[in-house]
Amino acid sequence: MRMQDLIEKKKNGFFHTKEELKFIIDGAVSGSIPDYQLSAWLMAVCFRGMSDGELAHVTELMARSGDTVDLSSLGDRTVDKHSTGGVGDKTTLIIAPLVASLGGIVAKMSGRGLGFTGGTIDKLESIPNFRTELSDAAFLRILSEHGVCIAGQSGNLTPADKKLYALRDVTATVDSIPLIASSVMSKKLATGAKSIVLDVKTGNGAFMKDVESASLLAQKMIAAGRAHGRNVRAVLTNMNIPLGNAVGNALEVKEAVEVLRGGGPRDLREICLVLATHMLALSVGGDEAALRRLCESALRDGTALRKLADMVRAQGGDVSCISNPESLPTAGTVYEIRSKKNGFIASMDCAVIGKTATLLGAGRETKGDHIDMSAGIVLTKKTGDFVRRGETLAYLHTNRAERLGEAELTYLSALAFSDTPVEREPLVYKIIV
Amino acid sequence: MRMQDLIEKKKNGFFHTKEELKFIIDGAVSGSIPDYQLSAWLMAVCFRGMSDGELAHVTELMARSGDTVDLSSLGDRTVDKHSTGGVGDKTTLIIAPLVASLGGIVAKMSGRGLGFTGGTIDKLESIPNFRTELSDAAFLRILSEHGVCIAGQSGNLTPADKKLYALRDVTATVDSIPLIASSVMSKKLATGAKSIVLDVKTGNGAFMKDVESASLLAQKMIAAGRAHGRNVRAVLTNMNIPLGNAVGNALEVKEAVEVLRGGGPRDLREICLVLATHMLALSVGGDEAALRRLCESALRDGTALRKLADMVRAQGGDVSCISNPESLPTAGTVYEIRSKKNGFIASMDCAVIGKTATLLGAGRETKGDHIDMSAGIVLTKKTGDFVRRGETLAYLHTNRAERLGEAELTYLSALAFSDTPVEREPLVYKIIV
Repeated sequence: MRMQDLIEKKKNGFFHTKEELKFIIDGAVSGSIPDYQLSAWLMAVCFRGMSDGELAHVTELMARSGDTVDLSSLGDRTVDKHSTGGVGDKTTLIIAPLVASLGGIVAKMSGRGLGFTGGTIDKLESIPNFRTELSDAAFLRILSEHGVCIAGQSGNLTPADKKLYALRDVTATVDSIPLIASSVMSKKLATGAKSIVLDVKTGNGAFMKDVESASLLAQKMIAAGRAHGRNVRAVLTNMNIPLGNAVGNALEVKEAVEVLRGGGPRDLREICLVLATHMLALSVGGDEAALRRLCESALRDGTALRKLADMVRAQGGDVSCISNPESLPTAGTVYEIRSKKNGFIASMDCAVIGKTATLLGAGRETKGDHIDMSAGIVLTKKTGDFVRRGETLAYLHTNRAERLGEAELTYLSALAFSDTPVEREPLVYKIIV
Repeated sequence: MRMQDLIEKKKNGFFHTKEELKFIIDGAVSGSIPDYQLSAWLMAVCFRGMSDGELAHVTELMARSGDTVDLSSLGDRTVDKHSTGGVGDKTTLIIAPLVASLGGIVAKMSGRGLGFTGGTIDKLESIPNFRTELSDAAFLRILSEHGVCIAGQSGNLTPADKKLYALRDVTATVDSIPLIASSVMSKKLATGAKSIVLDVKTGNGAFMKDVESASLLAQKMIAAGRAHGRNVRAVLTNMNIPLGNAVGNALEVKEAVEVLRGGGPRDLREICLVLATHMLALSVGGDEAALRRLCESALRDGTALRKLADMVRAQGGDVSCISNPESLPTAGTVYEIRSKKNGFIASMDCAVIGKTATLLGAGRETKGDHIDMSAGIVLTKKTGDFVRRGETLAYLHTNRAERLGEAELTYLSALAFSDTPVEREPLVYKIIV
């Protein structure tokens, strides 16, 4: 088998056999196929796509390319959630303990943030001493004791995906539906949960800009998961507007605790209730309306918050941060952005808001950058809100006061105003079961 | 400027500015752009194409990426011919002296063969002591004395094309019209002839399988040449059948000499007359019918043959090979392939015939392979001919008698038979001026 023949085949719109895909994935991991051939193939896949059969094969081959985590000792109630990435998305911090408090076993391996979206692992590390690097044994022990554990991805999980993702990032081959689907689902298969709920973000702050392409991505991911015996559902959620009000690591943990205390922003709370309901429906089973009511009361009566405290303690973190979130890291400067005009906020560019947070120190521009846990933004006005001149639009939290001018300009450039009221977009577009 | 952004731009179907193309071509030559980004960009070009403006820019940038040959001291009658490559194509050996004998100055830098097509330089090197590695000064001196010289491409001619071609060869990105056009025309611009006739081969033995795509390629090459002040015409010729009867280096030189003696196969002679007429029309000028009659008499009266002898002598070759072609290298074994059936030959797969010649030792499977100058095939029946069982189809010439079995089977697999007469295809499909 020669890689140039396989590239030619995909370029001409034909489908690969499982053996051909194995040759490609094995070659990517071993290095026997040079990067320049892999990147030409990835570009051909961007144009030609993959059949459901190809996607199922390539996902399995990538999942098996490295270590896998065996959760079978925990039974059938293991459940995972994956978000395709958004700005202000701290749902994992809320949903994981919420679902665990109602009987799901939430085994989550999360990534770090890069670019304008934050990573759950970074957010959790704003809690002093919280450990995300866990052995498989520790991961399984915490899961069996508490029903919830959030760990960083271990060293040799899906090396094929690591290899291809690194190449895709520098060859403009990221936004291909089968490549995104296989990347996500290979990690989900390797980390072993029986049920998976996919939060597919849709809008200007997401890879998928419209509901149609997000639906297609969701369907492909569901098919790839089901082909390997997993229960999968997808929820298409709005990412034309940041989720909740806080953007930045410690600020997001605080906001998550607010929701777990029964409060917090309405949009964030609602999306968490929807996702948690579907996670429970898949893992524990039962009527969805009843499951939702259980979730609401677990937020109201503190059950879910106590579960978060259990998890933080089990993972070595300072649990006083949960009962007293004011003890989380705080920034040296808090700067108020005031509106220069009257009007309705017509739209917010989430990617630009994410970049503003990065300027303030909350994100990474390149892999390995240091993150300032205290930095970020708290939004006080969002799309649809009416703002008067001089009213506060947002608070910028930073220890880089010298970048506040640039950050303010960047933030303001993300907003468009309208003289007339703006129709509110739905929070959840669609549920695909 | 970042290469990933330029890949993204081409992937999304937008056009590059000249500055962007310069960034890419400079980066390809200097190595500052890694191969994996170049190959992803090449694949995106395969899918998205290039505008005429992009093609003109990229061709010029590639032409100027290395050394160039300045022919201006020779005046305006310099003329070059390029064939996109075919099986049995020895036209250069005939046309170059023919056109020079009638006043054109034929300055030709040729390549070596790879895969199933032969290279002119390889063919000429079957003449003992013939030198193809010439300094620019020697090239110009021979041109000014004899009006014809055929040299190998010098060390640092169009390094950008060398770099991209090597990558294209292993990433299934060869058959893109703008990439072929810029590769061919950058070499033509760098080697400096004022007029260029393009022989665009069309059919199963060529990159372009049909007249439509060959026309498009021809138009793109003409546009790229004219954008840089060259006179360019294209002749679309049939490559569903080998040209002439001989395939293989010394065998092709012998056949070329036959044509220069006024004989030779009719198809080869006809295509040479057409190409030479257009080369003279562009370089010397005059009525095409009159020019064709001049070409016919130069073949008949030995003028063109004497010019070949002059060139061979000037380039150090053993000129007795021209007066006595039997002294060219001959193979140890000549094997006769006989027909197993009665019928008309309905079609011949030129690529498979080229591969047969390679099996016999006449070509290279990989760069650097040794070529047996004496090896090859002499066809005695071609498409449209009626063949009786037991009649000779072809003679295989080789010094690898052990591969004759495989070569015979391969050759026979190239032929399809029909019980009814077969319509002859035209030799020349179209002339684009």
